[in-house]
Amino acid sequence: MRIGFIGIGLMGSAMVRNLLRAGHAVTVWDRSAANLDAMQAAGAEVAPSPEAAGAGEALLSALPNDQAARDVFLGQGLLRALPPGVVHVNHATISVALARELAAQHSGQGVGYVAAPMFGRPDVAAAGKLEFLLGGSPEAIARVRPLLEAMGSRSWTLGDAPDCANAAKMAGNFMIAAAVEAMAEALALTRAYGVDTAGFVDFMTHNLFRAPIYQSYGRQMAAQDYAGGGIEIVYKDLSLVMDAGSAGHVPLPLASVVRDSFLEAIAAGDGGLNLSGLARTAARRANLPGPAA
Amino acid sequence: MRIGFIGIGLMGSAMVRNLLRAGHAVTVWDRSAANLDAMQAAGAEVAPSPEAAGAGEALLSALPNDQAARDVFLGQGLLRALPPGVVHVNHATISVALARELAAQHSGQGVGYVAAPMFGRPDVAAAGKLEFLLGGSPEAIARVRPLLEAMGSRSWTLGDAPDCANAAKMAGNFMIAAAVEAMAEALALTRAYGVDTAGFVDFMTHNLFRAPIYQSYGRQMAAQDYAGGGIEIVYKDLSLVMDAGSAGHVPLPLASVVRDSFLEAIAAGDGGLNLSGLARTAARRANLPGPAA
Amino acid sequence: MRIGFIGIGLMGSAMVRNLLRAGHAVTVWDRSAANLDAMQAAGAEVAPSPEAAGAGEALLSALPNDQAARDVFLGQGLLRALPPGVVHVNHATISVALARELAAQHSGQGVGYVAAPMFGRPDVAAAGKLEFLLGGSPEAIARVRPLLEAMGSRSWTLGDAPDCANAAKMAGNFMIAAAVEAMAEALALTRAYGVDTAGFVDFMTHNLFRAPIYQSYGRQMAAQDYAGGGIEIVYKDLSLVMDAGSAGHVPLPLASVVRDSFLEAIAAGDGGLNLSGLARTAARRANLPGPAA
Amino acid sequence: MRIGFIGIGLMGSAMVRNLLRAGHAVTVWDRSAANLDAMQAAGAEVAPSPEAAGAGEALLSALPNDQAARDVFLGQGLLRALPPGVVHVNHATISVALARELAAQHSGQGVGYVAAPMFGRPDVAAAGKLEFLLGGSPEAIARVRPLLEAMGSRSWTLGDAPDCANAAKMAGNFMIAAAVEAMAEALALTRAYGVDTAGFVDFMTHNLFRAPIYQSYGRQMAAQDYAGGGIEIVYKDLSLVMDAGSAGHVPLPLASVVRDSFLEAIAAGDGGLNLSGLARTAARRANLPGPAA
Repeated sequence: MRIGFIGIGLMGSAMVRNLLRAGHAVTVWDRSAANLDAMQAAGAEVAPSPEAAGAGEALLSALPNDQAARDVFLGQGLLRALPPGVVHVNHATISVALARELAAQHSGQGVGYVAAPMFGRPDVAAAGKLEFLLGGSPEAIARVRPLLEAMGSRSWTLGDAPDCANAAKMAGNFMIAAAVEAMAEALALTRAYGVDTAGFVDFMTHNLFRAPIYQSYGRQMAAQDYAGGGIEIVYKDLSLVMDAGSAGHVPLPLASVVRDSFLEAIAAGDGGLNLSGLARTAARRANLPGPAA
Repeated sequence: MRIGFIGIGLMGSAMVRNLLRAGHAVTVWDRSAANLDAMQAAGAEVAPSPEAAGAGEALLSALPNDQAARDVFLGQGLLRALPPGVVHVNHATISVALARELAAQHSGQGVGYVAAPMFGRPDVAAAGKLEFLLGGSPEAIARVRPLLEAMGSRSWTLGDAPDCANAAKMAGNFMIAAAVEAMAEALALTRAYGVDTAGFVDFMTHNLFRAPIYQSYGRQMAAQDYAGGGIEIVYKDLSLVMDAGSAGHVPLPLASVVRDSFLEAIAAGDGGLNLSGLARTAARRANLPGPAA
Repeated sequence: MRIGFIGIGLMGSAMVRNLLRAGHAVTVWDRSAANLDAMQAAGAEVAPSPEAAGAGEALLSALPNDQAARDVFLGQGLLRALPPGVVHVNHATISVALARELAAQHSGQGVGYVAAPMFGRPDVAAAGKLEFLLGGSPEAIARVRPLLEAMGSRSWTLGDAPDCANAAKMAGNFMIAAAVEAMAEALALTRAYGVDTAGFVDFMTHNLFRAPIYQSYGRQMAAQDYAGGGIEIVYKDLSLVMDAGSAGHVPLPLASVVRDSFLEAIAAGDGGLNLSGLARTAARRANLPGPAA
Repeated sequence: MRIGFIGIGLMGSAMVRNLLRAGHAVTVWDRSAANLDAMQAAGAEVAPSPEAAGAGEALLSALPNDQAARDVFLGQGLLRALPPGVVHVNHATISVALARELAAQHSGQGVGYVAAPMFGRPDVAAAGKLEFLLGGSPEAIARVRPLLEAMGSRSWTLGDAPDCANAAKMAGNFMIAAAVEAMAEALALTRAYGVDTAGFVDFMTHNLFRAPIYQSYGRQMAAQDYAGGGIEIVYKDLSLVMDAGSAGHVPLPLASVVRDSFLEAIAAGDGGLNLSGLARTAARRANLPGPAA
């Protein structure tokens, strides 16, 4: 297919490479010229403007946040410039409010709209093994499925309304953050009683909680290996989760506590740690001594 | 070994059968004569008193709660009657406060004491695949290891102080309840946005959360299959968790919210549902329509 | 003084009347022509545009929220049109983020800026007894003091940075909402034990809590008199409180719980009740029977 | 009247003095001989045993906690020794569970039982201005009213069941602690924005929150005057509040957060501060610099 791709960051560039590999003709646009150069070298065409990227059969976007998506599609008017019949696949983690607004505006323009937020880090994107949550009409989804298959290993269609997928992404992000906070508090409790932390983590994650999320963060917490970033980023995601609860009239008391813990971590200067750094916040509250506190 | 076993409920009887199968001579005692008859038929000797059960090389107990354990060992004086050199293996989920008190009293009597709380349901106990968290001196644990191996598949030694194991059991129970509440809130959020619940659960639990706890409760929540009991029982466990946090000066804000949700479920008459019934509480808060609310 | 006033709602119109009564020449502007007619009849001049209202020695604004304030001052460019030397007194309850942005922009323009959020309802405004929280330079505040004295009974200067006053308004709004939620939960607890609610409220508020906020909402809760509106409005204020905590890196766990209760009230259809309607939410959680639940 | 009084601490001794002043014949008992000597000097008769103190027309008790009340009345058997027709007035802050148990046992013995928990410190007790919350039958209350009037300025009858008054005491204690935590969080927020704390406290408490609880703790927080004790004591009260919620199936999410904050204060070593020390916990969470953090 002849398609466009807007937003060439770590994720976007990996996704474009896989689209090219699958034989699609990809025209890319990004604010950063450096990002575009690398894509050109990989075989993509560089668009002089967002509108030029939108002139194909489908337009994929992977912009970093609400503001960027709103600026490009509504503020700068890209949406109004899209030809009828194109399908826009939005991979960004955006608020449900913006998701709804974009869905309505696309519908008004006669432009297809598929929300396709994804889970997976850049290495997963590079391997073509992203997983997509899909919201959109069956027709629109069917038309872009070859593209999704070029970039990912599997996708889940959650409903006809695009914001379904965005709400599900929020819910998933919340579950991840809640799992981390639960483990952080559990380890503060066991540390206060002199429990061997590595042994406890091994016990909990060898069976009942034998899931990557618990295993990786559990091991990092036991090893006090906090390098890598994430707390500040996920804090922003948690604000979107709260907004989704607010807009949908869904009280999320657990999410509120998790968000407060992330904010406490940031206040303490731990915003640049990976999520296992939440263990420090829980330990600090309990005034636990030693390097983790 | 010649051993005693006190507390012949669903779990205890399965454990005794495996001890007998492994060739140990087991003398059992319980308040209920009916429970004892079945054990006699299985090859155990029935003790006329707790003291008689305590006359072997080791005494295992699996009493239902603090009050029962306190009554038998301290109130009725069994502990004072135990011969020096015996090792008492306490499988009950008891408070860390009682765990500490029992540890001190056993030590004062010259009686070995191993805390060995366990995870696993009656069917797991019957299969001899229980998992034990162990707190106690290496010597005491070494002496009873053959017994633990007859009843379970694996054990984790968490520290020399018996209450280590009890605190770890609390932390594990808390993590289970937190996982259920997180999934309940996540599903309330997705339901409010019209997401296909079964699809979302499948997505979340096929990889990132591919752990039994999420898979089983997630499926039950999606299917609104709440039969089976558990909320009221785990609520009591959560009160022990809070008590452990209190005694150890460990604030557990997530645990507080989880406990409140369980209490709200009980207030609504859902105390007899299995843990996936927490989805009803989260849905009720969001005033979601339909059978789940 | 010759001044302008933008935002002629229930509060603004009462404030303008008091300014006129004190002998100030007031030019008013509002989106609604009806609002302006009444002001003209009261002696104010009607401005054809916001800029015309901004041509005096001071410009007061009482716009309903962030969006309106942002639209008028930044979007439509009123700020850029203000003559150097004028002082803008902003009475709106706006986010600290916008407060900071406006402060910076005013400073860049050489225009004075005083944040003067207020407590008091329309009847208090009509009586000229508003109370103002002030943030701004001593010079700017000194210049507009005669105006504040015409509209209010007292003011508190909290700092040189305008957003001081906005943060203080948030903190005050939070304290009000927290007081209501505390009383709602206390009454759910006492109701569950058959306590005479009116007697309990009388006891609590005759001395220890003999403050208007507890007395008025306490009596309304006891009488189940929920008419009047407020929950939905204060929920928005609580979102601003959370945003202020977020921007200032201040975890506010109590505020999070209060906000969740307000959202639960709205989800249940109680958003149009006065704040004492929070008693219904607390009672619902406890599954209490009768009209209050 | 000829009465007994058990539990001669700071509060009890002040109460006995007022009973003596009003002309009642008071026989006192306490575990501490020193406490009794002072009472004898003041004109009371000293009982050789609790039973001897219980031989009058009424028996008042002011024991420090559940354990003491349970020991004296149930463990040591005082209740069984009380003559029929006597009325026991229990001033202690005890759990609703024990309150219910005592009510049932008194009823079974044909002994009157009035729960009369009180608010007021030793200086208020000395001035005879205590305030009592009453639970009990109108007849029993009528008989002891002259005693209550000798010790206090006013009382509120909340219901026929004694535990009404205990539940109300819990609810009142919760409201106090919630008010302190709300002010602590509000001040953390305003401090983070550079607000003049004393000014903010003055504003909040001169009108809307012009209640002793806010005025005194607010001033102490502003002055960072934390001397005096209270956090550890009120933490125990909050545990009773949670127990009352649990027994009555009343979720109290705000109380949970407040309790966690008190526990965090204790973990940080602030348990011996007066309640305004909660400001330190809120400030610590926000990583605020300076002496208050």
